[in-house]
Amino acid sequence: MNFDITVLGSNSALPTAQRFSSCHILNVRNKLFMVDCGEGTQIQLRKYKISFAKINHIFISHLHGDHVFGLPGMISSFDLLGRDHDVHIYAHADLKRIMDPYFAFFARQLNFKIVYHDINPSKHALVYNDRSLEVWTLPLNHSTPTCGFLFKEKPVSPNIRRDMVDFYKLGIKDIKLVKEGKDFVTPDGEIVANSRLTTQLHVPRSYAYCSDTAYAPLLPQLIKGIDLLYHEATFGLDLEKRAVQTKHSTTADAARVATEAGVKQLMIGHFSARYNKPETLLIETKQGFENTILAEDGLTLKL
Amino acid sequence: MNFDITVLGSNSALPTAQRFSSCHILNVRNKLFMVDCGEGTQIQLRKYKISFAKINHIFISHLHGDHVFGLPGMISSFDLLGRDHDVHIYAHADLKRIMDPYFAFFARQLNFKIVYHDINPSKHALVYNDRSLEVWTLPLNHSTPTCGFLFKEKPVSPNIRRDMVDFYKLGIKDIKLVKEGKDFVTPDGEIVANSRLTTQLHVPRSYAYCSDTAYAPLLPQLIKGIDLLYHEATFGLDLEKRAVQTKHSTTADAARVATEAGVKQLMIGHFSARYNKPETLLIETKQGFENTILAEDGLTLKL
Repeated sequence: MNFDITVLGSNSALPTAQRFSSCHILNVRNKLFMVDCGEGTQIQLRKYKISFAKINHIFISHLHGDHVFGLPGMISSFDLLGRDHDVHIYAHADLKRIMDPYFAFFARQLNFKIVYHDINPSKHALVYNDRSLEVWTLPLNHSTPTCGFLFKEKPVSPNIRRDMVDFYKLGIKDIKLVKEGKDFVTPDGEIVANSRLTTQLHVPRSYAYCSDTAYAPLLPQLIKGIDLLYHEATFGLDLEKRAVQTKHSTTADAARVATEAGVKQLMIGHFSARYNKPETLLIETKQGFENTILAEDGLTLKL
Repeated sequence: MNFDITVLGSNSALPTAQRFSSCHILNVRNKLFMVDCGEGTQIQLRKYKISFAKINHIFISHLHGDHVFGLPGMISSFDLLGRDHDVHIYAHADLKRIMDPYFAFFARQLNFKIVYHDINPSKHALVYNDRSLEVWTLPLNHSTPTCGFLFKEKPVSPNIRRDMVDFYKLGIKDIKLVKEGKDFVTPDGEIVANSRLTTQLHVPRSYAYCSDTAYAPLLPQLIKGIDLLYHEATFGLDLEKRAVQTKHSTTADAARVATEAGVKQLMIGHFSARYNKPETLLIETKQGFENTILAEDGLTLKL
């Protein structure tokens, strides 16, 4: 049961030859979710052999070009590849207003629908919900309405141990209660702990994508203890002023959020084009939060 | 005095990991001209170290996504890079109608103007003219109004040989006439050929970009004897039917145009994503026109 994050772009707005602009792909039990869609995303999908057809949900953090300019190419290619199932786009309402005439001109007579889901980036709200996953918006602090996204896997029902069913002679009602997490009480009044009766397959996993944003004081409480936080670190400490002006984060801001939220791992990205080698940004961030890694185009993390 | 063509994208509509979509850069005496602007063009500019600031004129062959989806990123990056001089876009009038609201949303308060020049793709007309270059539209035969572009360098005034000026005692009026190409007649009636008096620096060069198109019967007469013809060959002979359906060219179509026009060299491109290695397309084309090369991302031809 995979829960894999693949980075397709780790760069900020100005292009570089080394890094594409923002896009992550989350694979939850073989369903693919896209977060942001910078220019060239479809090229990266090809490069890293990711299925276009399995992408049904696209989440857009905000309406700056480096997070959306890949969308028209995606829609066109969906069409050219014969797509016949809907694609859902979760974004600020302006996206539909601005993009729809553009899509309509360049990709006419689609055999699928583009279903828009308007989100309010200033609210923390559930915007997607299925059997295995919840997606929540995370209000951020940027120069245009922006939100991050929290992907929370749902618990899987535990497997009941066959030997325990036989040993304690569990009936259908008992099994149902154990599956719901209850302990079992024998006719003699002995309490058998749920953990003795079941095999936990896995612990639900969680991942948050937070870009673009200055330090957002209310963010840490919304992402307490998650497995992986992707947080932008557009600038190093050398350009703190520039970060403030443009409402981006420094390495220290990213480390601070990770620390305050007590996340298990931090991945920084959205690097300014001036950092040819973002290793310096990694060193800085680690001073505030040790378990940090650099986003890199093509990197896949399996949680 | 350079006249260099650099290929930034040699692929057709569906993305591949190997090739970007259509864009050529022509460098004429250090002025850069862009032809088409597929998704990822700005990434390719970075990769091949081409100046954004020197690009002032962008010619768009037609309004299919793989020829224009790089424009919004270019305009945004022009802005982020501090551009303060206008950019001229030559395209079908629909481009302005469709793109302008999009540009206006994603790149507000520009310090430069986007100057649109409406072109009629069905006419052969002069659309750009400066001291060193003329650009002519070339009507093509595609599923939407489409034209190619013919770039014709102008002759450079010949340099007059200093020793001849002294020897024949040429006055200012004589020099002017010789610069205009006239022979000189001495007071004794001796005719001195212009070629003896001058040093020809170079022969004017010419290049045509023709994509996308099915075989266009009127095209060869418009590009007679040019130095370089870029002609699409989206499909090989194995997919002739598909070429007819989609109004694209096969390798044989491209060779036929090159032969009928008597061009010096043919470059084929706009390859369908199904051709991982377009060498087979080259072999086929050479059967009809020997002096053919393959377009390849990053290739620069110096004419």
